[in-house]
This record gives sequence, structure tokens and C-alpha cells, in this order.
Amino acid sequence: MSSNLNNRRWVLVNYPESMPEERDFRLDSSLKVPELKEGEILVQASYLSVDPYMRGRISPTKGYTPGVELEGLMPAGGVGEIIESRADQFESGDKVALENFGWQEYAVVEADMAHKVDTDLAPIQSYLSYMGMPGLTAYFGLFDVASAKPGDCVAVSAASGAVGQVVGQLAKAHGCRVVAIASSGKKIDWCKEIGYDAGINYRKVENLSDEIKAVCPDGVDVYFDNTGGPINDAIMENLNLNARIAVCGVISLADKVGKPDIGPRYLRQILIARARIQGFLVFDYIDRYPEAREHLGKLISDGEFKFKEDVSDGIESMASSFIQLLNSENFGKKLIKI
Amino acid sequence: MSSNLNNRRWVLVNYPESMPEERDFRLDSSLKVPELKEGEILVQASYLSVDPYMRGRISPTKGYTPGVELEGLMPAGGVGEIIESRADQFESGDKVALENFGWQEYAVVEADMAHKVDTDLAPIQSYLSYMGMPGLTAYFGLFDVASAKPGDCVAVSAASGAVGQVVGQLAKAHGCRVVAIASSGKKIDWCKEIGYDAGINYRKVENLSDEIKAVCPDGVDVYFDNTGGPINDAIMENLNLNARIAVCGVISLADKVGKPDIGPRYLRQILIARARIQGFLVFDYIDRYPEAREHLGKLISDGEFKFKEDVSDGIESMASSFIQLLNSENFGKKLIKI
Repeated sequence: MSSNLNNRRWVLVNYPESMPEERDFRLDSSLKVPELKEGEILVQASYLSVDPYMRGRISPTKGYTPGVELEGLMPAGGVGEIIESRADQFESGDKVALENFGWQEYAVVEADMAHKVDTDLAPIQSYLSYMGMPGLTAYFGLFDVASAKPGDCVAVSAASGAVGQVVGQLAKAHGCRVVAIASSGKKIDWCKEIGYDAGINYRKVENLSDEIKAVCPDGVDVYFDNTGGPINDAIMENLNLNARIAVCGVISLADKVGKPDIGPRYLRQILIARARIQGFLVFDYIDRYPEAREHLGKLISDGEFKFKEDVSDGIESMASSFIQLLNSENFGKKLIKI
Repeated sequence: MSSNLNNRRWVLVNYPESMPEERDFRLDSSLKVPELKEGEILVQASYLSVDPYMRGRISPTKGYTPGVELEGLMPAGGVGEIIESRADQFESGDKVALENFGWQEYAVVEADMAHKVDTDLAPIQSYLSYMGMPGLTAYFGLFDVASAKPGDCVAVSAASGAVGQVVGQLAKAHGCRVVAIASSGKKIDWCKEIGYDAGINYRKVENLSDEIKAVCPDGVDVYFDNTGGPINDAIMENLNLNARIAVCGVISLADKVGKPDIGPRYLRQILIARARIQGFLVFDYIDRYPEAREHLGKLISDGEFKFKEDVSDGIESMASSFIQLLNSENFGKKLIKI
């Protein structure tokens, strides 16, 4: 039985007040994989996903979902192989994705928490990126929340990230002009390689608002906001009439969870531009996933689609990789190969 | 000929840096009514409208429309009687409304700038309030921008104002629970008389956010924002899931035109609540005015509709009335009887 397996797992030991540090987590080796109950499966991780939303889970403040408890397992999406099944719909060897695998090497879950992935269509780890939540997030944020239309000037923050890479390629294929905002020249170069028309390295410009004005002289029609903070500010100063802003993430506020974010407000600009700002969460679109998957599938099978991953090795690297991500030090979709 | 008539008119003499003062305007008596050209009409004002949007026009900063020039006539909607016509579609004695009458006793305009009003259906001055722009603004803001649904908890700032009175009665008739926010106990009493379910005098509460929480324990579904500022802040701390905020006016920022508004920002709350914030301008809905007029006409002919006006006498009172309005010292739709 698999229940003799050691299962290394990261638990939360402290709610960080500002930017998390590695000591806020502990790699725990004390637990073995539990014995399966009827209807459960045991999955061995191939890849785990590192995502900005995790920052919101390690705050005692109310978020989308209940936060992680102290000594609780950190959440993460994951893909892997079933090594034991007590459920009819799966057998050993099946490749599956789990929306919540956890920061651990093995997961035991009820079978309906897993869904099979097709590794002939795309590599297994892509189900954590463009074939998974980030891809779906890009699709609904761009087309549904931000109502992107051909001809729009579309700005994207964290443009070389998991979501941003997909947004850029979806928008470009839709006939938009696409502007990447990212934190290094290398990232901007990559964005241009995958189809972005222009790019701004926000760490190298004196005045981001002026720079956006230069690149988007008629103003920004759509802003896909993965960051909040100063990039959002600079966009708000450059809204075109009827601009739409899809608020997907606020990673730049990572050191301000539970604290007010003080700065310039833009209600007058929103009124003058008759702009729309809308927060969204991909899970609200679950009924429409098939539509999004079909659209993404076409984009990918057209053969032009490109995607960069940033892979670290081993469960040990999970906490440091998460902190890297919060500091924009990753380049591409952050994954941990187990 | 009418061109011997003296025409008293208010001109702008100074761009106010913060809250306007009476000395920023001058009542000018030096001009006579000009002679009519072919196609023009001369209208004698019965009522002029005083509205918050005027604050935005007396700033050198970009707004919806070009600002007023120094020594230029201040803008205002007005209703009155035609006393001379050189246009086929009108004759002397016709009652008309002008979207831009100006702060003056007489207006000479091209005939197609005027439209006849039916004073059998509603009193002439109502075409400056519930039968005019404020009524249309209430309709499109509530139903189109904020997508109000039966059962929603709808909060309205400046609830006893020209727009707010209509919003409250439209929302109540639509099956919403309606909460008035206003600046005095008297105003709140009036709001309850016209159908608001609850009211908050924001000048008398210690913590507005807590008060809103008490009155809207499940959070605010719709906020019709006529003010911006601290009331907006308190609402942002009480958003229900999928809340919609229609930004109609930012009168509380009247002393900050052209200057940044610094304070707490709410991007994280927008994300967590998946809320939508949208600025709008009634003129964008011009193609749908008939639909709105029909809806408002039904509400009014049902016989339950109530509306309070705050009328000052004489062109002399125009500037002081405008400043009163900016300080929330009016009670009801502010009008000047000429």
C-alpha cells in the first residue's frame, strides 16, 4: 500500500504582515500518505503551480475563500499521475489536474476533485497555465469583463506572466493593439516575440504615465490589470472614452494585505471617461469553461502560440519560488517540478 | 422689437482653485438682447436649473466638454416662453426647454436647440428635473449602468437631490430595498416620505461605514453615487458580491478640481467582491430617451410620485444658489424662478 509513503508538505506558520518570507512557512516531513477511503485517489505531483492568489490566502482578512490556518497546508494547483485509485472513474497511471493539490508531493482527494488531462494535446504542465486556470482567466477577463473589440488599445500588466502571455496572444489574434507592461527588458523582448505590439519596462521609465501616453496616444481602451498599484495609477491617467479595466489581480499590494492602500483616487477620471472597472474571478465562469477551452484550443492549434515557463526543481523550492513571484523575479509561468 | 430688452447674465471672472465663491462670478447688465436672425427664437426664462456639473465647467482642466472661458456666460438648463420667433416650428407663447439656456434672463438660440414641453402633463419646471435630465440620468444610471434588480439593496447619495429623489422612487417601484444617504435629518425624513426604506444622515453618524453595515447587513448591491468622497469610501467597505456602482457625480470633490484626490483605494475590495464601477453621462443615452421618458411617465401617472424643489427668486440669486448646492445646503432640486 502507498500509505507508507512519506509526504513532504509546506504549512503556514505565521501570517506575514507585509511581504512574506520563507520563515513564514515550514516544510513538514512528519506525515505519511493516509490510506485511501472508498471513492478516493492518490495522486503523485508532477508539477505544482505557484500563483499570486496565494498571497490573499495567508491573511486573516476576508478574501474570496477562507484563509489558510496556522499549521495548515498551503494551497496550490497541481498536475500528476494517479498511483492508487479506489474510484471507478480513474485507474493508476491516469494523468490528472487538481485545482487544489496543495504544496505537497502527494495528494489524496475524492475522485470528483480531479479531472483527466490530455497529454497528447498539450504537455501536462500546460494544464496549470494556458490550458488551465490562467488561460481561462485570460479569456473571460479579456472578452467578457473588458469587452475587448478589434482596434482597441489593450494594455496588460505582468504581461509575461501566466495570464498575461495568454491575454496578449488572445487580444492580438482578435485584432487589438497590445501593449505589454513588465518588470525587465528581457520580459518585454519575450512579449514582443509572442505578438505584443509594444512594451514598457516599468522599472526603467522615469514617468510611467507619460510613457503610456507616448505608446497609447489615444488612450487605453482596455487594461487587463494583474497588479494594481502604480501601474494601475498610470493607466487611470490615460483612459480613453469608455475604457474598460478588468481587475484580475492586485499583486503589487502584496505587502498591504489587511492594510489600506493610500494614494491618488480616480473617481473623477472614471466619470469623465465613462470608464468601467470590474473585478472578476474565473470560478464564476465555470458554466462557460467549454466555450473558453474551445477558443483557446483553436489559438493553440493554429500553431503560432508561444508560452514561457519558469520551472524550479523540487518541493523544497516552493516557498522561495512563491516569494520570487511576489517580487516579479520569475520570468514566465512559475512552476515547481516535483 | 425685443432687441431693446436688457439681459442680465452671469459671467465667470475667475477659475476657483477650490470651492467657488460668489466673487468668482459677475452679474453683467451691459448687454441688450440681440436682434434675431432667420431660424432663431428668443426665449424668456421662467426657471433656470442649478446643477453640480457646473463645477466641472469652471476649471481649466479637461472635463466632458470645454470649460467656460473667463468673461464667458455660465451654462445652465432653462425653461421659458418664446417671446419672438423667426423659425417656422415655433411661435410666440410656446413653452420650451433649452439644454443650455445660460445663467441669463433671455436666450437667443437656433430653433433646433429648443424643444416644446407639455405643461398640461407636468409643470414647466419639472422639465428641468424629473421630466428632464435628472430624471433621465436616474433611469439610465439605475437600470443600465447599475443593472438594479428586484431585491437589491440600493444605496443613493444626495438622495433628496434632483437625481436622488427619482432614483429612490424608480428603485422602490422596481422592488429594491432603497437606502437614502443625505446631509440632514429633514432630508432623510423627506426621503422616507417618498419611499426610501431607510436613511442615514451622514453628518450625524460617528462612523459611516459601520452605519451602512448596520442598515445593509448583507452589503450594498447597488450604489448610485452622486457625490464620490467619504460616502463612496464607506460604501466600498460594504460591497456585496457582484456589487455595481454607477458614478453619476463627484460633487464632494468640488474643492479638488484639477488636484489629486488622495485617500484609501479599494482595488482589492473590487476584486474580492467582483464589483463593477462605471462612470456615465446621460447624453450618451440620447437614442434611448423615449424609453426612459415612457418609464418615468408611467411612474408619474401612477400618482404616487413626489418631488421636492428648492426655488430661489431672481437672476441675482444664481451664484449664491450654486454655492449653496455645492455645500449641500439646498433641499430638493435647486431652481431659480426668473
